[in-house]
Amino acid sequence: MKVGIINVTGYAGVELARLLRNHPEAEIVSVTGRSAVGGKLGDVFPHLSNIDLVIEPELGKSVDVAFSALPQVASAEAVVPLVRGGVKVVDISADFRLHDPVEYETWYKSVHPAPGLLEESVYGLTELNRDDVASANLVANPGCYPTGALLALAPLASQGLMQPEVVIDSKSGVSGAGRGFSLLTHYSEVNENVQAYGLDGHRHLPEITQELGRLMPDAEPKVTFVPHLIPMTRGIFSACYVRPKDGALVSGGKATARLMDLYRDFYADDSFVKVATSPPATKQTWGNNDCLVYPVADERAGCLVLLSCIDNLVKGAAGQAIQNMNLMFGLPESAGLEGLAVYP
Amino acid sequence: MKVGIINVTGYAGVELARLLRNHPEAEIVSVTGRSAVGGKLGDVFPHLSNIDLVIEPELGKSVDVAFSALPQVASAEAVVPLVRGGVKVVDISADFRLHDPVEYETWYKSVHPAPGLLEESVYGLTELNRDDVASANLVANPGCYPTGALLALAPLASQGLMQPEVVIDSKSGVSGAGRGFSLLTHYSEVNENVQAYGLDGHRHLPEITQELGRLMPDAEPKVTFVPHLIPMTRGIFSACYVRPKDGALVSGGKATARLMDLYRDFYADDSFVKVATSPPATKQTWGNNDCLVYPVADERAGCLVLLSCIDNLVKGAAGQAIQNMNLMFGLPESAGLEGLAVYP
Amino acid sequence: MKVGIINVTGYAGVELARLLRNHPEAEIVSVTGRSAVGGKLGDVFPHLSNIDLVIEPELGKSVDVAFSALPQVASAEAVVPLVRGGVKVVDISADFRLHDPVEYETWYKSVHPAPGLLEESVYGLTELNRDDVASANLVANPGCYPTGALLALAPLASQGLMQPEVVIDSKSGVSGAGRGFSLLTHYSEVNENVQAYGLDGHRHLPEITQELGRLMPDAEPKVTFVPHLIPMTRGIFSACYVRPKDGALVSGGKATARLMDLYRDFYADDSFVKVATSPPATKQTWGNNDCLVYPVADERAGCLVLLSCIDNLVKGAAGQAIQNMNLMFGLPESAGLEGLAVYP
Amino acid sequence: MKVGIINVTGYAGVELARLLRNHPEAEIVSVTGRSAVGGKLGDVFPHLSNIDLVIEPELGKSVDVAFSALPQVASAEAVVPLVRGGVKVVDISADFRLHDPVEYETWYKSVHPAPGLLEESVYGLTELNRDDVASANLVANPGCYPTGALLALAPLASQGLMQPEVVIDSKSGVSGAGRGFSLLTHYSEVNENVQAYGLDGHRHLPEITQELGRLMPDAEPKVTFVPHLIPMTRGIFSACYVRPKDGALVSGGKATARLMDLYRDFYADDSFVKVATSPPATKQTWGNNDCLVYPVADERAGCLVLLSCIDNLVKGAAGQAIQNMNLMFGLPESAGLEGLAVYP
Repeated sequence: MKVGIINVTGYAGVELARLLRNHPEAEIVSVTGRSAVGGKLGDVFPHLSNIDLVIEPELGKSVDVAFSALPQVASAEAVVPLVRGGVKVVDISADFRLHDPVEYETWYKSVHPAPGLLEESVYGLTELNRDDVASANLVANPGCYPTGALLALAPLASQGLMQPEVVIDSKSGVSGAGRGFSLLTHYSEVNENVQAYGLDGHRHLPEITQELGRLMPDAEPKVTFVPHLIPMTRGIFSACYVRPKDGALVSGGKATARLMDLYRDFYADDSFVKVATSPPATKQTWGNNDCLVYPVADERAGCLVLLSCIDNLVKGAAGQAIQNMNLMFGLPESAGLEGLAVYP
Repeated sequence: MKVGIINVTGYAGVELARLLRNHPEAEIVSVTGRSAVGGKLGDVFPHLSNIDLVIEPELGKSVDVAFSALPQVASAEAVVPLVRGGVKVVDISADFRLHDPVEYETWYKSVHPAPGLLEESVYGLTELNRDDVASANLVANPGCYPTGALLALAPLASQGLMQPEVVIDSKSGVSGAGRGFSLLTHYSEVNENVQAYGLDGHRHLPEITQELGRLMPDAEPKVTFVPHLIPMTRGIFSACYVRPKDGALVSGGKATARLMDLYRDFYADDSFVKVATSPPATKQTWGNNDCLVYPVADERAGCLVLLSCIDNLVKGAAGQAIQNMNLMFGLPESAGLEGLAVYP
Repeated sequence: MKVGIINVTGYAGVELARLLRNHPEAEIVSVTGRSAVGGKLGDVFPHLSNIDLVIEPELGKSVDVAFSALPQVASAEAVVPLVRGGVKVVDISADFRLHDPVEYETWYKSVHPAPGLLEESVYGLTELNRDDVASANLVANPGCYPTGALLALAPLASQGLMQPEVVIDSKSGVSGAGRGFSLLTHYSEVNENVQAYGLDGHRHLPEITQELGRLMPDAEPKVTFVPHLIPMTRGIFSACYVRPKDGALVSGGKATARLMDLYRDFYADDSFVKVATSPPATKQTWGNNDCLVYPVADERAGCLVLLSCIDNLVKGAAGQAIQNMNLMFGLPESAGLEGLAVYP
Repeated sequence: MKVGIINVTGYAGVELARLLRNHPEAEIVSVTGRSAVGGKLGDVFPHLSNIDLVIEPELGKSVDVAFSALPQVASAEAVVPLVRGGVKVVDISADFRLHDPVEYETWYKSVHPAPGLLEESVYGLTELNRDDVASANLVANPGCYPTGALLALAPLASQGLMQPEVVIDSKSGVSGAGRGFSLLTHYSEVNENVQAYGLDGHRHLPEITQELGRLMPDAEPKVTFVPHLIPMTRGIFSACYVRPKDGALVSGGKATARLMDLYRDFYADDSFVKVATSPPATKQTWGNNDCLVYPVADERAGCLVLLSCIDNLVKGAAGQAIQNMNLMFGLPESAGLEGLAVYP
């Protein structure tokens, strides 16, 4: 299987390269960049020196599948001719996540560059959409925050067990902000510091609301989403707070155990989503494709607390993209993704 | 004013020493420790080498005021004879925070060691209790989490503007866990990691509930409190989520501005509590006694988000203790606390 | 190939488990611990939950090869019966690194527990000792500092090009200090801090001196070794400073280029030791078995600067141990070690 | 005393503002910036909100003393009219550190902008140049690396006790690279990483060589200087390696004790330079003006190891600048600099 990576020079791009290098069925044949064009991949990123490729301005060889790690708008533009030409595409940008082009324009301040592809694109939160992904030609890979938050909420939401008001308080490592420069990626500003951002509406909010709405079609979710930047490189920890529809879910002294059963059942067949047996930590997913979920019932206050941990660059980006590719080509879902987390 | 520090060898203790060293009216005359007894303070803690004292087993000279930085139970036992002997005391432990000895026993798994002093002790969240502190002989210095959370919620709670259900999602630096050893203070376990803890009930929860109940006497607060450990040394960032009693508070497009006015009025006379003009960050309080608060109305979801930042060892411990001492002795509240945050 | 890990519960032990899990020819069949005996490996270390084993008090099944990650003395004691029983052993402790039992006693304050095995043990710095490792039954896996320092110096030392006085200034992440508790592993003490330690003689010094002496048999190396602890989890960066024997090596304006050639030739056949094309960084080896070396000639001052980077838990411990195992069993040297560094 | 800060918006500038805010004799009356002009200082830097000033394009009021925190070249240009107009100036840039304009041009790739002022400028490493600073109108504040390295070496160098070959291996926090953007200040690139840089000659090298040459006029120092970037915000740790002129200095078993005496005598009258009683750590100087020095004799290898720790933004920049200002105005040297280090 010949693979191309569009814009390999960002963090999602290099992570795709790292993971695909050891994929048993895939071979990276072409990588492009918006910077460093003409350079050897291993000179620009020494940890990739085992991959003998030059960074090209455009995908150079015929590929069976392409990953786009471009920013929105540019990504859709690059993807259209590929999809039209029969190449399967996993788009890591936000371009095909929101089904409604009006909503897209509201949040991304740009007319959608390829509204004609919206209908055939599939939202690639693998565990919640496995069948559609398997038959898709264009997968919209989810945002990092939506991945963790939706996996924490899905068992409750899909069974109509929660009220529509949701608070999602997420803590992210800095790599989520990419390799670009700003005070939010400046070491001396971020180290020994924690701050909330996107308080007037983060772009991942409509994505969470859209997918939560699909999971609980009888309700209209009201999501408060507050992402925080914390001083670490990788990892997202999301704490989701909801009230149960049925008070029984938080009473009787064994509510957490019942929740656990519910979650274990829901994810029984998913190798990458694990219901933790003790409170999870992002480091337990460092560098691999796991999502750890952990539900707790706060019986005193009548509140459900749903926790999840992922590596934002793996399950939150490159890893899930490969998981989707595996499905699209009929491979085992975990092919190339079997590395354990690097701990400590 | 002659000052003694009981158990100077923990982080609250050394922070008291650091701050008191430059206090214009106070002189540290005696320090005790449970370890390193007989050692010179400056040999054990080189950053305190300008203070020429030996660590003693017990307070050695007559003091006008004593700070206890012992753990609970031991602290009450040390404090009783001092208070009885006419020494003013600021107790940084949890021993005199909860008014109800039954509640104390429930959370601290020990019979209260000095229930007779509970009535005269004053909860020292200075801004909310200034008059009582000024006339107290025994001040119970608040926990670090309650300090930040209560200052974020007080303007709403005290004016009856919020529903009783509260979610408090706090992120703390590791120094809050003290100088003792555990996997929660082990560098390789904590670095590049974030985790929630205390999910079955953190000891600061009853303290928050008690004081919130005093602020909103007509309601029974239902608090869900989830503390997180993040990879930094100092700082607590708390995000509090509540629903307004009056829907008007989150509608009309200018809700955040109205909230801001409410908060600015409430804290107009408090030099250490500052309503931030942009989303705050813990680093802006690093090493000093400020608490930054920042209210946001999420009009989409009908939720109020109340943020606060403190340095857990200063406003969350040693700094507020000195602020209380200043009030108890009729000094300017900010005496010895005028250092700005160290940034970056 | 059936593999056992003795003392899986330390950092070298869990790293062995992580790497061996995906080894194409090896299967972990038994793991022991000094703590957590009886617990499931995946409950104690959630990132290893894909390995379905219980932590036992002793190696439980017949194994073809055993790794010992016990501390010194205890390790030798555990290893003797295995070696005598025909099990091949890679010992990660210090017990079989120093050939001279008197030297061992001087540095480790204990009579050597198994002097009879010293002769047949082989010092497993793979690249410098490949043939002996291949035929060994007992390999003494090198210390983390010696691995990085010796690989940086070997091309010069083995060709008699340097004076015998060597300064090695190393910077290590905290995981090198293990999972035990001390102020050197306490987060709040180590974060935002750098310090030298072992100034009266680190235990890795005699190991470096011994092996350097083997490389340059006509000289008596005089090594000054100063390790530093820096605030990161993994990685060792060593800067070695030597004077050339022949002044020509640091003159003429192209000295660095000539050094580069020398190093590239020396390591031409080693897949894990890479001569970097730009100044290396430890992060480029994070989680994998590479050692990056980089020589620079300071022509102004007449000094050679030899830099190296490794992951202390991989090339500095578990990875090199597996590399040695591969040689001992005639497998490709890189089997199971093909994962790229996790970056960023 | 009316003080102006030129370019307050960099890290040296905000640190000057933080420290001067509590100086008993100085009042900041004007601050300039190259960005954020017209903004309130407290809006741009919330930790400075107690200082009620607007950032101006040029120094606005008559000042008695000005600090320039501009980059080189721009700084000299800004400083010339001030000095000519009778304002005392402490220049934190590199412009007046090198006495030889040819050397300046070699290292800074620019003709010196004000060679006429070179003669009257004084190199402000306070402890080594106290008298000249006291009578100066223009002080060139030393670089951060030279400050730590020279204080570590001065007792030996000034008494002719060391050979001229010196290795200086320094480890710096990231704030030394300023508030500008590059991969060397990008969080995800720097965190969990250590790297050497400036291997072809760092600009602080000629400054170290010049001043070392003044201390040991009979020798021609040969300095190898390798700075490293480590994942922390503040602090520089320098390890200097030299050979003694007189072998007696590293023999006899008590060499370290004799060295200690030498250092204690040398710095007996300096309140900010402290000979540590145990191996020092940068955190012990975090936020204050101390320099900790610690000499060790490696008798085995015949080498002297001289260690020093500073906060690069205080003793390495703003703090030493204020120390110099104090001398220039006949104030106590420690005025405004009495805050202890913030620990942990």
